[in-house]
Order: sequence, then structure tokens, then C-alpha cells
Amino acid sequence: MKNAFYAQSGGVTAVINASACGVIETARKFPDKIGTVYAGQNGIIGALMENLIDTSKESSADISALKHTPSGGFGSCRYKMKSLEDNKAEYQRLIEVFKAHNIGYFFYNGGGDSADTCLKVSQLSESMGYPIQAIHVPKTVDNDLPVTDNCPGFGSVAKYIAVSTMEASFDVASMAATSTKIFVLEVMGRHAGWIAAAGGLLDDSIPVVILFPEIKFDEKKFLAKVDANVKKFGYCTIVVSEGTQWPDGRFLAEQGTRDDFGHAQLGGAAPVVANLIKDALGHKYHWAVADYLQRAARHLSSKSDVQQAYALGEAAVNLAMEGKNSVMPAIIRTGNNPYTWEIGIGELKDIANVEKMMPMEYISDDGFGITEACREYLQPLIEGEDYPPYKNGLPDYVVMKKHIVAKKLPTFEV
Amino acid sequence: MKNAFYAQSGGVTAVINASACGVIETARKFPDKIGTVYAGQNGIIGALMENLIDTSKESSADISALKHTPSGGFGSCRYKMKSLEDNKAEYQRLIEVFKAHNIGYFFYNGGGDSADTCLKVSQLSESMGYPIQAIHVPKTVDNDLPVTDNCPGFGSVAKYIAVSTMEASFDVASMAATSTKIFVLEVMGRHAGWIAAAGGLLDDSIPVVILFPEIKFDEKKFLAKVDANVKKFGYCTIVVSEGTQWPDGRFLAEQGTRDDFGHAQLGGAAPVVANLIKDALGHKYHWAVADYLQRAARHLSSKSDVQQAYALGEAAVNLAMEGKNSVMPAIIRTGNNPYTWEIGIGELKDIANVEKMMPMEYISDDGFGITEACREYLQPLIEGEDYPPYKNGLPDYVVMKKHIVAKKLPTFEV
Repeated sequence: MKNAFYAQSGGVTAVINASACGVIETARKFPDKIGTVYAGQNGIIGALMENLIDTSKESSADISALKHTPSGGFGSCRYKMKSLEDNKAEYQRLIEVFKAHNIGYFFYNGGGDSADTCLKVSQLSESMGYPIQAIHVPKTVDNDLPVTDNCPGFGSVAKYIAVSTMEASFDVASMAATSTKIFVLEVMGRHAGWIAAAGGLLDDSIPVVILFPEIKFDEKKFLAKVDANVKKFGYCTIVVSEGTQWPDGRFLAEQGTRDDFGHAQLGGAAPVVANLIKDALGHKYHWAVADYLQRAARHLSSKSDVQQAYALGEAAVNLAMEGKNSVMPAIIRTGNNPYTWEIGIGELKDIANVEKMMPMEYISDDGFGITEACREYLQPLIEGEDYPPYKNGLPDYVVMKKHIVAKKLPTFEV
Repeated sequence: MKNAFYAQSGGVTAVINASACGVIETARKFPDKIGTVYAGQNGIIGALMENLIDTSKESSADISALKHTPSGGFGSCRYKMKSLEDNKAEYQRLIEVFKAHNIGYFFYNGGGDSADTCLKVSQLSESMGYPIQAIHVPKTVDNDLPVTDNCPGFGSVAKYIAVSTMEASFDVASMAATSTKIFVLEVMGRHAGWIAAAGGLLDDSIPVVILFPEIKFDEKKFLAKVDANVKKFGYCTIVVSEGTQWPDGRFLAEQGTRDDFGHAQLGGAAPVVANLIKDALGHKYHWAVADYLQRAARHLSSKSDVQQAYALGEAAVNLAMEGKNSVMPAIIRTGNNPYTWEIGIGELKDIANVEKMMPMEYISDDGFGITEACREYLQPLIEGEDYPPYKNGLPDYVVMKKHIVAKKLPTFEV
């Protein structure tokens, strides 16, 4: 009987803990095959430093509460393992730690980088004579993993952005006669416009202009579009991706702004866009930057996102029990209207370091909105609500006890 | 039998429409005494320009849906009536419009300025021989009206800020080991720290430093506090009011930032604070500016806020039916734990132009947090959830039909 190791990787989401819950609850159903599930304290560096959290010391109720708790319950990290050639010692250390703690299953919950790490661990472990079944559990608000229909975490961010854009638009619509006519919301997505696209899910009674990182910023065309919207609707809402670029490739936010001390610009893309409009069209504006609020907003998660995040954690353990290795459970869409899906399986070699970009046919011809095909894809992902329980007016989120297992190996410098 | 006029004033909130719903639904219960409820299109300028919305053309279902719809359903405006001496013509125009449409009840839903307008209309109408019962319905996220325990709109913003601060803090806590250690959230409240104070409602396992507009920014003391939190907790969350000032009285946001074209600074207080920390302590940061998202977030309204907003609209009509004039229904707190309240009554002369500031005994000695007295006051205001219905993943908010009544008077320039 082997133990299992689970780690969270990269930027956390509103539902990555639901995957953790799926892994741990499902592993507990195989007491004959899986001993203890250890979780990496702060992700993979928890394994490298031999800081293993004993999840068996967490109560069933607390593990269950992970399903409605945002963030990384065991801690995550931004730590990209170097290539095997550049730093074989790190991979060897991982396997030594796994060996020392009799770990035979490695569940890694993250995006493209962690899929790559997962694959390498599996390969190296065989050559080192200590085989480990490595299963990747998909997670990323960037929604850029191949094979899977979507990535857990994305649907909830999309719902947050769609709802927030709608609410702020209602607000501006009621003030526009004498006051604010422009509202700019900056959203995440440095490389792809998946998140910004969610602003296009409102019905067309609400004028929303989207600035995608995929489309170079055309100031003149943009201002004409905003002007037309203000003339027609009395106001205009803009959803701008943090990754939107000037024609020369600089990010919108890099406008060369300096403070009194000569420090580089402080702001984001939203104030830049708002000021352009003010200067050209004279309208009063407001702007918001959602930043972490969007990916942490478990209070507004999409129900399908929570369900899929859990199901993928569950499936990862089931795949391990079936003897699978170097794979990732994936969401396979089987129908729209109603949205139906099942769990499929992808090979890590087809997933590691492959980025799924937003298809250009999802962006409208003028570059400022989404197409019907995009709406068909996105719509099911924001559907359903899954509210956390509340206590004293605040969500009753759980904090893990994080009991660290006694170390068996010498210290390792990360 | 007289008609009634209802108008929304100033910045809108998540629950001002619940007050509108309370006014209209209650007025419909007095068919012998109240004819039609007219609503001002875009607030008081709707009355000045004789743009009156006939609310009897809105279905019962739509009026009921106002209770779960944020923003100003009939439109609001930022339009401060000048003093009686400076612009008597405007007040006279109001009364002429009321007279032309047989309006005997004036329900004005707003903050301190609108309470003042309400009072003047009542006074002038008597001297002009066309008595109007003027009732003010309190509303403002600034929470600065006297007499009432709190102002509808504030409780929901407070809940949004408390929940968002909590969620972002959970996020940062899981990333802090290798990445972001500082999260800064900028919140509304140019003159008073009521909204910022809501960031203090988390339990003390979460390190939150609050910057209030009431306390001049002490950079050295602030950095020491942040440093201590990072050392103790591994991270630190900062909630900064947009009204926070440097010792010389400039707003934090006015740091003299200029872009390439010499335009004044674009950003808010949050990036300024984040950069100060980065420069002094070297920590990686993220920042968010909630702006309109906070006051429009009906998806996360506090239940007591929604109930009180409705109850105050209802009470306004009941007071009118009792023959009252120049008054405002108010929330009177009758107990904490459990929170109990009843509707009281305030005289507009005691309310107009009186600002209720945040008591200094609500701010902790170090100036960066709230006291137990403040917590006792705030806690009940964020309690309970009151979710809107959803359709296709988005809140099912209502849009009024806004049938404009035929004009009877010559045009008036506003």
C-alpha cells in the first residue's frame, strides 16, 4: 500500500480547493490501496523541503468545507521546476522524498507548467527505479490547457466578471444623464482574452466594449466605438484585459507614467483607457481593477465550475486506482443546451507546454466583442450558483490545521 | 385625491430600488388616497424638466423585482439644487410641475443634500399656497445621515468589502511563501471611513491594516505595521479609503504622477500604497480598486440592508398617510445580539446638511483598525444574505419600461 502526495501549483482560484476535496475524499474511499494523502505545504516546494501536511489529521468536515473555500488550502507557490538537464537534482530530490514517505501517487493540481513537471516526475521515477503514478489535475483561471473543455477556476472568474460588468453597467446607466458615462473594468488574462470575453455575455441592451490581448489596440477605432455607444445608449462600459497592447507591443498600462521620484507607472490599463476617453470625448469616467477579487470570489462561483473541479479531483484518484500514469482527467463537452459533460482523459505528453489560445472566430469582426460561437462556449460555464455557508455575515471558509509530518531526510536548499 | 412623486438622488446603491419598491407597493395599498406614483426620470431633473415616469404602467412583478435590482431603476442624478435665494425659480418650477400633475406627496430618496431640498420644497410649497407633504427616504453608501442608525446602501457595501477583503486575504495567504505578500484594496468614502472600517470585520487571524480618511497617513508608522504583519503572518492586507490623506492634506492618490504627456496622475490610492511598500520593504504586491463594483453588488447584499431599505420606503408612505410633512423615517436600533430595530422618525430640519462622522472611538489607538464598539455597530449591518434570482448564470435584474407622462407645461431649462 502506497501513500499519496497532492500539491497546488501557481495562482490559486475559487475552486482549486474543491479539487483538493475531490482528491482527498475519494482517496479515503480506498483505504486498502491508498494510505495517507500528504499535501505539499505551499505546493511543490513542500515536497522539495519535505514539508508534508498530513491530511488525515484534518476532520472530514474540514475536508468537505474545502469544497466551498477559495484559495489554496495547503498553500501554493510560483516555482517553476527547471528542465531536467538544468536541475536534475531537484527532480531526484522529489523522488527521494516520495520514496522516504512511501508515496506512490502524485496528484499535481495546476496549469501547463505543472503538467510538465508531473510528466517529468513520472518519467524520471521509472528510470530511478521507484515508479510513481503521476496524475495532473487541471486548474487555471487562464483557461489555456488543451484537451479539456475548460479549466476549473475559469468558469467562476467568468461569472464574476459577467455579473460585475452587468451590475456596474446598471449603475452607470442610472447616473449617465448628469454624471459618469464611462465605466472601465480591468480584468486578468495577460496572454489570452478568455476572461475579458466574459464581459460579452450580457445581452445587447448593455453596451460593452471589450479590449482583448489578441487584438492590438486601435485607439481611433476604439474611441469611435465608445462615442457611438454613448450616443446610442447614453453610456458605455469597457472591459479591458490587463494584457491589451499598443500596436508596438507594449502593454496599455506601460504608458511611461512616472511619479515625482521617477518611479515607473503605478497604474493598470483601466485608468489609461479611461483617460484616453476623457481626453478625446470629454466624458466623466469611473474605473475598477478587480485583480485578486475576481479569482478569489468563491461567494459567486459558478455551480458547474465547482462540480467540475470536484469531479476532476475525484477522477484523478480513480485513474490512479485504474493504474494510469502520466495522464490528466479532462472535461469533455457532450452537449450544449442543456450543457452536458463527462470526464475524459488526456496524455500529459499532449498537454505539457501546449497553450490553448482563444480562437479568433470567438472575437467579433470589429475586435470589440464576442461571437455567437464564443457565447455558446462560455454560457454554460457561468451557469448555476453554489453559495458557501455564511456565519456572522461572512462566508464560513475553512482553514486547514496543517499538521506537518516528521522529516526523514537531510535538509535540501530550494 | 393626490398623486405622488418619487425621485432617486445622487450615487445609486445596491438597495435604493428596494426603497422605490417599498414606496410604490405601499402607495398601491392606498388607492383612495394616492392616485398615481410618478417617478422622476433621472431624479429631480425629471421633475424640473417634467419628465415624469408613470409607475402605474409598470407591472406588479416588475415593481417587485426592483427589490432585488441594484442601481437607480428610474435614473438618478448628481444635481444639487442651489439655495432658495440663488435660484428660487427652480423650486418654484418644481412646485408648478407638482401642481400641474396634482402631486401632493413628494418622496425624495437620497442623502444629506436631498434632505435639504426636500425640506425647502415643503417650506416653499406652503408659502406658495400649494402644500406638499415632503418625505425624505434615506439612502447613501457614505452612511453619514444623522438620526438613523445607518443608511440603506451602506450595509451592502460593507458586506461586499468585508467578504472581498476576506477572499483576497485567503488568496494572498496561500501565495505568500514564494510570491505576493501584500494585497491592497481601495474602497470608497472620500470624507468618512465607514466603508474602510468594514475591512476590520474579519477575525484577527487575518492581518488587515486600514487607512482611514480621518487619520492623516503616517508613512513610517504604517510601514512598520505592515512589516510586523508580514513577519508574523507571512503577508498583509491593506484596505485604503480613497479619501486617505498625506499629512499636508493632499489625497494619497495625488502623488504628482504625470504621464508622458504631462497629464495628472491616473491611478488611485491603492497603487501608491502598494509602491510605497515595495520600495521600503521589497514585497511583491497586488492591488485592486473596487469602485462601482462595491456599491452595485446586489449579488452580495446584506439581508438587513435590503429589509431596511424596503421598510423605509414603506414607512415614508405610511408617514404621508398619517399627515406627516418634512420628516424622514429612520432606523432605530433597539438591540444587538440579536440585532433588533424599529422605524422611527426624524425632522428634516435636524437632518438637512448635518453630517454624521465616524466617531473617533470607533478607530483603534494605532489608527489602523476598528475597536470593539465599532465592530458591535457594524456587525449586524452585514448580516444575512438576500440573493437575487438568476437566469442563464446572471442575476435577473429588472429594467423599468419608463412610460413618460404627457407634458402640461412649457419647457424649462436646467
